[in-house]
Formats: sequence, structure tokens, C-alpha cells
Amino acid sequence: MNNENLNVAIVGATGAVGTKILEKLLERKFPAKTIKMLASKRSAGTEISAGGQTYIVEETVPESFEGIDIAFFSAGGSVSQKFAPEAVKRGAVVIDNTSAFRMEEGVPLVVPEVNPHMLNEHEGIIANPNCSTIQMVAALQPVKEKFGISRIIVSTYQAVSGAGAEAIDELEAQSKEFQERSNSKADILPSASAAKHYPIAFNAIPQIDMFDDSGYTLEELKMMNETKKIFGDQNLAVTATCVRLPVVTGHSESVYIETDDVNATVEDIQSAMKGASGVVVQDDPSTQTYPMPLFAEGKDEVFVGRIRKDPKHPGGFHLWIVADNLLKGAALNSVQIAEELIK
Amino acid sequence: MNNENLNVAIVGATGAVGTKILEKLLERKFPAKTIKMLASKRSAGTEISAGGQTYIVEETVPESFEGIDIAFFSAGGSVSQKFAPEAVKRGAVVIDNTSAFRMEEGVPLVVPEVNPHMLNEHEGIIANPNCSTIQMVAALQPVKEKFGISRIIVSTYQAVSGAGAEAIDELEAQSKEFQERSNSKADILPSASAAKHYPIAFNAIPQIDMFDDSGYTLEELKMMNETKKIFGDQNLAVTATCVRLPVVTGHSESVYIETDDVNATVEDIQSAMKGASGVVVQDDPSTQTYPMPLFAEGKDEVFVGRIRKDPKHPGGFHLWIVADNLLKGAALNSVQIAEELIK
Repeated sequence: MNNENLNVAIVGATGAVGTKILEKLLERKFPAKTIKMLASKRSAGTEISAGGQTYIVEETVPESFEGIDIAFFSAGGSVSQKFAPEAVKRGAVVIDNTSAFRMEEGVPLVVPEVNPHMLNEHEGIIANPNCSTIQMVAALQPVKEKFGISRIIVSTYQAVSGAGAEAIDELEAQSKEFQERSNSKADILPSASAAKHYPIAFNAIPQIDMFDDSGYTLEELKMMNETKKIFGDQNLAVTATCVRLPVVTGHSESVYIETDDVNATVEDIQSAMKGASGVVVQDDPSTQTYPMPLFAEGKDEVFVGRIRKDPKHPGGFHLWIVADNLLKGAALNSVQIAEELIK
Repeated sequence: MNNENLNVAIVGATGAVGTKILEKLLERKFPAKTIKMLASKRSAGTEISAGGQTYIVEETVPESFEGIDIAFFSAGGSVSQKFAPEAVKRGAVVIDNTSAFRMEEGVPLVVPEVNPHMLNEHEGIIANPNCSTIQMVAALQPVKEKFGISRIIVSTYQAVSGAGAEAIDELEAQSKEFQERSNSKADILPSASAAKHYPIAFNAIPQIDMFDDSGYTLEELKMMNETKKIFGDQNLAVTATCVRLPVVTGHSESVYIETDDVNATVEDIQSAMKGASGVVVQDDPSTQTYPMPLFAEGKDEVFVGRIRKDPKHPGGFHLWIVADNLLKGAALNSVQIAEELIK
């Protein structure tokens, strides 16, 4: 790919992630000659201002992708299913932020700090992993590289912004109903398309996305399957419980790992992570230093703390991993994939 | 003990748990002839109304325990340290809800559904376990009995009411600051006595109680050590991560267990629990049925759902366990201990 003067498109331009992709492209001075903002017919004509310029949103049609070099997709799985092949057909490389193609063969699933080499094998579509997966594999990669990891058991603490702008509005409205909290109006969470909705304010909902026949949610299965694909290790034992919290932005994860090196210490784990790109260790109990979602909002990095050794199981460690789910979990990682692609 | 016409005292009578102990004694028709409400000098004279009667709070002094048969303590560890021996000296049996004596030899640590037999070995003081421990062992006991449990890895999602009435007020005030949430005033959490305080609204704080040199918090160590003592199994591998959430009442726990029976199924686990006293299985993904803290508030039972088999580890299961931390986690369990004692 010509690595200058690129024509870029963002599908889902009016969404939370689409807007942040535009911001990150500008902030990181991505060499785009043009940026075309695409969305549904309903949003066509919307003006988006960023970096001193105004972008006018156009309706997405197959012809939108004529002459496009890189197309970011973040408008839901069905839009990707419909238009990503049209973009590829016209010569664009698609970086897809939905789950539509993630597990397909021939579609690299990439976190640039972890498996950039997979980019060489794409056939037009590159998938951006699920938000909760990205921050976990980014933090664990240096540990895996140095000590090996055979097992991961993760419980998540996920923010509502992962469910879109309406979920944020719902949390804000419900948060005012402190006294009447169990009767709060709920229309969006756990999933807009679910039959039942529950208040998220002052609650924890152990359902993100819909259920599979196995009893796991699709969110949990994404974490389990995507982690194995990204790490290129189908024998890795990964299992997950995903929970939605009354947090606006910032996913947290209580991650338990078993390393292959039973002699690894907390200091070993910390020092492996300290050298890693995009990872910040915030881990000092003596000063109450640990990551929290409220302070990760708006930050690019993945934050790790509460690193502890399991007293009963050699090689077992706990970690507390926090990141902005809209940035490293979505928009930033997509833009980093594009940067890696044109290197 | 004479099992009728008992003289009962509640130390910490004005606190959240003390009030609930009184309520549970009345609701469950505990055979108390008198109930003496005790607190600090500051609270002496306070009137507490319950069950159509008014109780006047008295200052706690050693002589308060003359003639008392059962004394419930829930006024902090230092109050228990000072006055529990005075109560025992005067012939009372102490049921202590603080962590003051829990790990001492000769002090039974009791959840009546799990280890009632330990009550025979008390020397005057019986300890009520930590809230997060009680609900976990109550739910796991039927599984342990039927299939054996060798390992527990738990991540908690804990409510602010565990940190007292001031923490509830703080959450309510901060919840109104949706836009300015990262600048919310914080004075109580993670721990009133900690050097630093962080907002809990729209956040998750991975610190409950203070840190030990091991990097674990005292709350985490309580779960780990108390579980082994209650189950009477020092070889049990238990490890915990404890996290505070913007939830008013109701602790949730993502619990991963390894059973000894590698052939156990989800249905086996469910049916073992369905027969257990005090445990309610709420587990049907097809109807989005699972426990949530917002709906456990005010309920006596321990609720369990999201029971799933680890696809990679035979015998490994996930459970999602929720209970009212002020009731089964504190007041109710204390009253149940008293009931067991006079059986």
C-alpha cells in the first residue's frame, strides 16, 4: 500500500467509536489525503467537526468505496457483512471493529502490540478484536512471551459505553433515582435486543450480549475464542465471566493466570510489563496505587495493577487490568492496525 | 442454655447491622425476654422503634452484660476486643460480627448451614464470618458435600453499605455528579482510615479494607482464611480479588471452583444447590434469569446463577453468587447462630 496520501473511509461515522477513530487519525497525524465519513441514510448530511475541519456524513452505498484505500467499519455486524465485501472488491483494506468476521479463517485478528505479523496474511479484511479481549491480551503479551501462560480465568467489570450512547443516557437518568432505584425505567441494558431489560445504576448485570446454548454469553465466548486466535494457541485454557457495571467508560478485568514458570515473582511480572509498549504498571499498595476505570477514561494505555501471587498455586497470579474501552478497546486499536499496515 | 426467656444485648445498636439484628430477632420471634440496645456514650439515649416497641440505647460498660445470656457485637473490632471478654466473664455467649476473634483457636467461625457442629466447641465467643465469605460458603457447601471442592478463585463485586452509612451517603451524593464524576468529593471509600479516597460512583475500586505486606487486602485475606476455617480444610486453595462497586446493598461474586468429580455436570451442581437450606438457584439463560444485587436487597437467601462448565478444565465451574450483605452477610447469620445455639 502506498503509505502517503491515503483515501480513508469511516463507516459508522456518527457513532461513539466512529467519532473517536476520526479523532485518533487526526491526533496521530495519519497520512490521509481524504477522510470520507459514512453512515446510514438517516444520518446523511450530519456535520462532524474535528481538527478545525467540517466533515459531512454521506450514506453508505457500494460505490462509496471507489478509490478508498482503508475503510474502518464500526456500524454493527450486519453493516459490515453487507458493505465490507463491497469495499474489498473495490480495492480497499477493511479494518472491521464488529464481530462479523473475527473468527473467520483468512481474517487476521490483530492487536498491534501482540500479533502484528498476522497482518501479512490478510485477504482484504482485518478484524479488530472485542474491547474486553484487546486490553487483556495487550497486558498479558509480555508475560506470555517471557514466562508462558497456560491458563486464564477472567471476570470483567464492563462500562456501559460499550453498549452505545443510549446506554450512557440510561445510566445517567437512572443514577438520579437513588431512592427508587429498583423501579428505574430500563430499555437498553443488558442488550437493546434482549427480551428483558434491567436497571444498571446501583446494580451489576451478569449478562453482556446474548446467551449461547452453552450458558455462556457471546461476550464471554468472544473473550475465550479471540484470545486463543490472537495468541495463536488453541490449547490455551481461557474462560470468562462478563459483567456490566454502572461505569460510563473504562473496562476493568480481574484476571487470574497460570504461568509456565513456577518460579516467576511479582517483580518479574511487573518488570516484564514495564517494558511493554502501550502498557502502564500502576501497582503500589503502599500508596494505594492501582488502576480504576474512572481515571482510565480518555487515556490510550492499558493500565495494570494489583499483581499478586496465588499463595497456594505456584505460577498463579492475579492482575487487575483497566483500559478505555472506546480507545484501546476500539478506535485506537483500529487506527494502530492501519498504521502498522502502512509501515 | 435455657432456651426460653433469654436476656439479649446488641452492641452497636445504632449501626446498620445492629438495627437489622433487632429486626431479625423480632421478625423470627426469637425467644428474648429482654433486648438491651447498647452503643457508644455519644449514642446513649437514642430511641429505636421496632415491632411496636421503643428501645432506648444505653452506653456500653462492663456491667451492661450482667444477666445477659446472648450478646451480639457489631460495633467494630476494638469495641469487641474491649467488651466481649467482659460479657463472657459475666456468663454471656458473645456472637461477634467483627473480625476481632475470627481466626483465634477456640472461637468457632460459623455459618449455620455449613458448620453448625462447631458451635459445640465455643469458649464464650462465636464469630460471625465476613459478609463476602458467608454467602460464598453457604452456596458452595452443598457442592462441596456432594462433589468435593479443591480450589476456589473468586472476584467480588461489593456494595458500599459494607463500609457503613456514610459510604451510602457518599455514593448518593456522587451519583448526582454525572458530568463531573472524576472530580467528585470523596472522604470515605475505599476505607475511611485510608490515606487516599477515591469516588465510587461510576467507578470500581479494587481495594476493600487496608493492604497486607503480601499485596492482598485484608478483605481478600479474610475470604481466603475464613473459608478454609469454616470448611475445616487447610489444604483448600482459595484466592480472592475484592472490588468495591457503586451498588448500595448486595454483594455479588464471580466464583470459579474446581470440583473433585470431573464428571459433574451443570445440572448436578444446580440440583445439589436446589435442595440446600437458604440457597435459591436463579439460573435460566433462556429467560435472562440470574441474580443481581439490586434485587437481592432485603432478601434473606443466597442467590446463585450463571452456573457453567469450564470447557477446557474438567471439574471446573463458574458460579455467580449474590446476597444482601447486611442480612445473610451479617445480621441474619448472627441471629441464625443464636437460634442454633438454643436448639
